[in-house]
Amino acid sequence: MTAQLLDGKSLAKQIRAELAEQVAKFKSESNVTPTLAAVLVGDDPASDVYVRNKRRDCTEVGIESVLHRLGADTTQTELLALIEKLNSDPQVHGILVQLPLPNQIDTEQVLEAIAPCKDVDAFHPENVGRLVQGRPVFLPCTPHGVVELLKRNNISTAGKHVVVVGRSDIVGKPLSIMLAQKGADATVTICHSRTQDLPAVTLLADILVVAIGRPNFITADMVRPGAVVVDVGINRTDAGLVGDVDFDAVSKVAGHITPVPGGVGPLTRVMLLINTLNAARTATKL
Amino acid sequence: MTAQLLDGKSLAKQIRAELAEQVAKFKSESNVTPTLAAVLVGDDPASDVYVRNKRRDCTEVGIESVLHRLGADTTQTELLALIEKLNSDPQVHGILVQLPLPNQIDTEQVLEAIAPCKDVDAFHPENVGRLVQGRPVFLPCTPHGVVELLKRNNISTAGKHVVVVGRSDIVGKPLSIMLAQKGADATVTICHSRTQDLPAVTLLADILVVAIGRPNFITADMVRPGAVVVDVGINRTDAGLVGDVDFDAVSKVAGHITPVPGGVGPLTRVMLLINTLNAARTATKL
Repeated sequence: MTAQLLDGKSLAKQIRAELAEQVAKFKSESNVTPTLAAVLVGDDPASDVYVRNKRRDCTEVGIESVLHRLGADTTQTELLALIEKLNSDPQVHGILVQLPLPNQIDTEQVLEAIAPCKDVDAFHPENVGRLVQGRPVFLPCTPHGVVELLKRNNISTAGKHVVVVGRSDIVGKPLSIMLAQKGADATVTICHSRTQDLPAVTLLADILVVAIGRPNFITADMVRPGAVVVDVGINRTDAGLVGDVDFDAVSKVAGHITPVPGGVGPLTRVMLLINTLNAARTATKL
Repeated sequence: MTAQLLDGKSLAKQIRAELAEQVAKFKSESNVTPTLAAVLVGDDPASDVYVRNKRRDCTEVGIESVLHRLGADTTQTELLALIEKLNSDPQVHGILVQLPLPNQIDTEQVLEAIAPCKDVDAFHPENVGRLVQGRPVFLPCTPHGVVELLKRNNISTAGKHVVVVGRSDIVGKPLSIMLAQKGADATVTICHSRTQDLPAVTLLADILVVAIGRPNFITADMVRPGAVVVDVGINRTDAGLVGDVDFDAVSKVAGHITPVPGGVGPLTRVMLLINTLNAARTATKL
């Protein structure tokens, strides 16, 4: 291993400490407690863990979280009624609907029903559009986590060639746009499963971000010596949780690399807290 | 000149002929005339010409256009009131606000006031977000024009490396996303004024799309022999209208090239007609 580790876990802890101070200041100035409504439908064990972790993060920084747990047989109408109630509740600043939702639910319709000003996941098309237009209300959590991880490690993206592997709605597409915007100023290449000669493309990268959902997909021969490698993937395998990057081999070539777990994941969770605080600030005009 | 010309003018004429048939069919089936409301504020001579051309296109294909001309001293409130009226008028299917607007007007607020289902320019953040999420209501006219120009000339983007020079809200960013989506399947690099060693990047392009607004910016040494070159630029110079590509020199290297004028421009105009017809179809549920 020669690469320097980009330690998301420690960084997230540090940011949560900063946030706890900001939340305390906001509360004392506004007499308002930033509040996240978490909606959990059904009994998927993984979703259960995710929501529990997010709520624990909230508690740590002084954000209140309220859990709305609905049965696996919840109807579209019932779920939309809950969203509507949360939209119009002035004490709720952020609404998080944990995905995936059961099969009988139209997920897109549910996500679009969330008031854009409470859409702390930034999945609503209006928030995605604002992001593209360079005037976001909320930044999407995982791309924001990647950007913050680079920034706090003094890795500038300006003028650099960033290659993003993966074109998902949640990571690849919004991150590509964010990094190409004014201010970030990277030259950005987005590739995916249909890219021809992927190694030739990834070898161009000063900064390689991988979010394609295939365990150990990026091998050492695909990485330029000294490149920064950010692994967004989390795959459950027989060998435990592994990323999209073959860590052992790539860490001998890269200049910087994120571990999995403990890289981007913890930062993603922190960004939800930041969005919730910002939603509360906007709602109370502070 | 060795490159094959991508003739947007003839192609646009052909598509308008196809559209005229589709409009006639729609009218006879629905008893509804697709109608575009064009809003022109102030007396910028170029805007005047643009709106006149767009209305002439409408007439040619059987779409009705209604011009709303407002004085240069129109207030924000007056303009928003007009938009509101057009939003709620069931006989209006598409609303086009010609840009630029006078200085006293908040352009973003005006564009966001247009009902997304009548936003035939696809500038509303909700429509931009839907585009990114791969479920657009309307495609933005210039990027759609580029895509259609390639498609109708049997130039596939799948697996190709497309380099987009320029990161504007209207062309570079939405086009990059559209070409990287499933179905288009290109590997896409977006570059801009802060890109380092731009020629090294443009030389990677199987298809090079330029929308940076600088006359003759792309020179022959920046183009891979045989590449497809699409020039979105239109710059007024002492030598007349020129594109962002040094046409005389690059056409000796490229495999295909668009002329300026007569390349992307005519197709952009056609896409507005398609969006207006689609808006009318959706409004009448046909």
